[in-house]
Amino acid sequence: MDYHRVFTQAIDRLHAEGRYRVFIDILRNKGSFPNARCFAGHNGPKPITVWCSNDYLAMGQHPKVIAAMEDALHDVGAGSGGTRNIGGNTHYHVDLEAELADLHDKEGALIFTSGYVSNDATLSTLAKILPGCVVFSDELNHASMIAGIRNSGCEKQVFRHNDLEHLEELLAAADPDVPKLIAFESVYSMDGDVAPIHAICDLADKYNALTYLDEVHAVGMYGARGGGISERDDAAHRLTIIEGTLGKAFGVMGGYIAADQMIIDVIRSYAPGFIFTTSLSPVLVAGVLAAVRHLKQSSEERDGQQAAAQCLKDMFADAGLPVMPSTTHIVPLMVGDPIRAKKISDILLAEYGVYVQPINYPTVPRGLERLRFTPGPSHTEEMMRELTGALVEIWGRLELRKAA
Amino acid sequence: MDYHRVFTQAIDRLHAEGRYRVFIDILRNKGSFPNARCFAGHNGPKPITVWCSNDYLAMGQHPKVIAAMEDALHDVGAGSGGTRNIGGNTHYHVDLEAELADLHDKEGALIFTSGYVSNDATLSTLAKILPGCVVFSDELNHASMIAGIRNSGCEKQVFRHNDLEHLEELLAAADPDVPKLIAFESVYSMDGDVAPIHAICDLADKYNALTYLDEVHAVGMYGARGGGISERDDAAHRLTIIEGTLGKAFGVMGGYIAADQMIIDVIRSYAPGFIFTTSLSPVLVAGVLAAVRHLKQSSEERDGQQAAAQCLKDMFADAGLPVMPSTTHIVPLMVGDPIRAKKISDILLAEYGVYVQPINYPTVPRGLERLRFTPGPSHTEEMMRELTGALVEIWGRLELRKAA
Repeated sequence: MDYHRVFTQAIDRLHAEGRYRVFIDILRNKGSFPNARCFAGHNGPKPITVWCSNDYLAMGQHPKVIAAMEDALHDVGAGSGGTRNIGGNTHYHVDLEAELADLHDKEGALIFTSGYVSNDATLSTLAKILPGCVVFSDELNHASMIAGIRNSGCEKQVFRHNDLEHLEELLAAADPDVPKLIAFESVYSMDGDVAPIHAICDLADKYNALTYLDEVHAVGMYGARGGGISERDDAAHRLTIIEGTLGKAFGVMGGYIAADQMIIDVIRSYAPGFIFTTSLSPVLVAGVLAAVRHLKQSSEERDGQQAAAQCLKDMFADAGLPVMPSTTHIVPLMVGDPIRAKKISDILLAEYGVYVQPINYPTVPRGLERLRFTPGPSHTEEMMRELTGALVEIWGRLELRKAA
Repeated sequence: MDYHRVFTQAIDRLHAEGRYRVFIDILRNKGSFPNARCFAGHNGPKPITVWCSNDYLAMGQHPKVIAAMEDALHDVGAGSGGTRNIGGNTHYHVDLEAELADLHDKEGALIFTSGYVSNDATLSTLAKILPGCVVFSDELNHASMIAGIRNSGCEKQVFRHNDLEHLEELLAAADPDVPKLIAFESVYSMDGDVAPIHAICDLADKYNALTYLDEVHAVGMYGARGGGISERDDAAHRLTIIEGTLGKAFGVMGGYIAADQMIIDVIRSYAPGFIFTTSLSPVLVAGVLAAVRHLKQSSEERDGQQAAAQCLKDMFADAGLPVMPSTTHIVPLMVGDPIRAKKISDILLAEYGVYVQPINYPTVPRGLERLRFTPGPSHTEEMMRELTGALVEIWGRLELRKAA
């Protein structure tokens, strides 16, 4: 058994497919987002503009968030020092869970160390608790939901993306007496489209299924108080579990679920991924509390983001660039090849100081490689014009396909 | 299918077994650890002494750590804003991975959002990459290692705790040509005993197996630079992968592995739990950098912790309390019953202002429920005398079994 050979082959496969990942080494400049410094090359940090951050509303640099984190740092210190059960349950955690439950009009909420862990721990535990459970999963669900469903060991039925007829076909074919769970997302982050939440809930009612909605690319950004697409569509009360992140629009780090108190208590008591891990640092929790509270009463950031996204989509379309039909704040540009996607990204960074990461397999299916832009309230029209000009030049230089 | 009934039954089982968990709501007082405030009851926060924190060396309150986090907060903001591949790879992450690689004398290191995720993501990915891999796992391995091994889908062979003969028996019985991985811990955190690392590495050499050592309860605390038991025993170079946490002795949050560059690259490129998650907040990474650097050149905290642990063990033994035979900084007191363990903990908190959480199933096997004390350099002899006196009084009041 030659271990080194196996590992070398695994890495060689990535190089051969053109999807070996190189992490770009950056530091953001607090207070002047989307400006940052890049440490690639050897001449010290270079100024760049970030176009691919999931800190969608720049809340990670909001003065209220920074102040709250500084206060917590000086009041209680750096970390929590333990699991939630053993010394790591701070008053900040208790307050944030109440705030998140209120955000989604649910009885309770539970914080995890990440959105990935929220999905993995909740889905794997829920499906295990329900004997014989069948999970109905949208084919474009995030890797963390797929992990949770697989780790539950239960039966999985995959329905075509946002396809209600296919979902109903699968539900109707299942044993009426077994527990059922429909798992889906509100905003699909690589395409920017949105699930028909009410219609899926109608099916759940008809076939007595529970529902699990991942809102990580929507919380903070949709709904009058930032409760996500389920708030915007007035559907939160119909969903069994809403899952969200603290690391995107809320600007910090961590994940959570909101649901009835009974379900929160079950996950809290049975999920290894919740029980056996040091709780989120109180410094982070304090920052999130400030971000959630701010976005509950301010729509300025949301409005700015929507305007920026529309403006960039229009500029791309006017310039003949192959922008994909997103209905949200996500602005994806189709390339369809991993090597070219990386090449465009490399040129943008080296020649234009524009940072946008290529999106390759396994994040998107092979053949659908793309660039994904996330303009926010701080990206100016001038930045967008410069970006569009750069892309048009590169598209010409590399002789890439323009929009149909 | 009555979902509510299934969930109710799941919670009722916990109450019936006396192991329904109640999280104690606290805030630590920065600068005066182990003092904290407890929010139980209705008369505002009460002062308590924390005896169960895994911030073993109080580094979470160290001035260097606090200052580094404050600097990062003001330089770059709250969160990283993305995965390591998409906007979330900051210069702090790059620096910390170099620092951790150096700590364990390895070529590379990789940071995860928690120690739990480090174990789950690395073990599940590693065993999947190696076709037909068999994992040999110590029976007392942590839940996160068990999750990683199970999620890999590979064959698992459990060997009796620290039992070299049993391990060799299993290794010898396995097909010589299949990949093998021995997974174990250095310090077992609920008993406080230590693995025979060199002897296990001898077996790994003999049977051509890789080794995976979890050092979460040892990094920062053992070895001249805090490299863990593997540094103390001069065994780091013999181990394939060393895993550690940033949330215990280093006082903040997160986890990592250290290994050859090739293995780091494989895990970095293939582990969903690493790829698909927002990276650790740069504020936390900056704090950890300060903690790791400090503990590389200061042994004062380690020495203070060892002295405190020895002192408390001696006092417990002298008072006839059933202290378990730990050889490390962990001081476990056997109770053997979940309801009594909780009762003692409740009395300590309500009447003595002492916070130590009962340790029940599934953290320890049923029938081995205990209290687990983690004295550190800031716990004074007077605090220990008061604690011992309180326990002796409660032991008498509840007519509990004393030491043999």
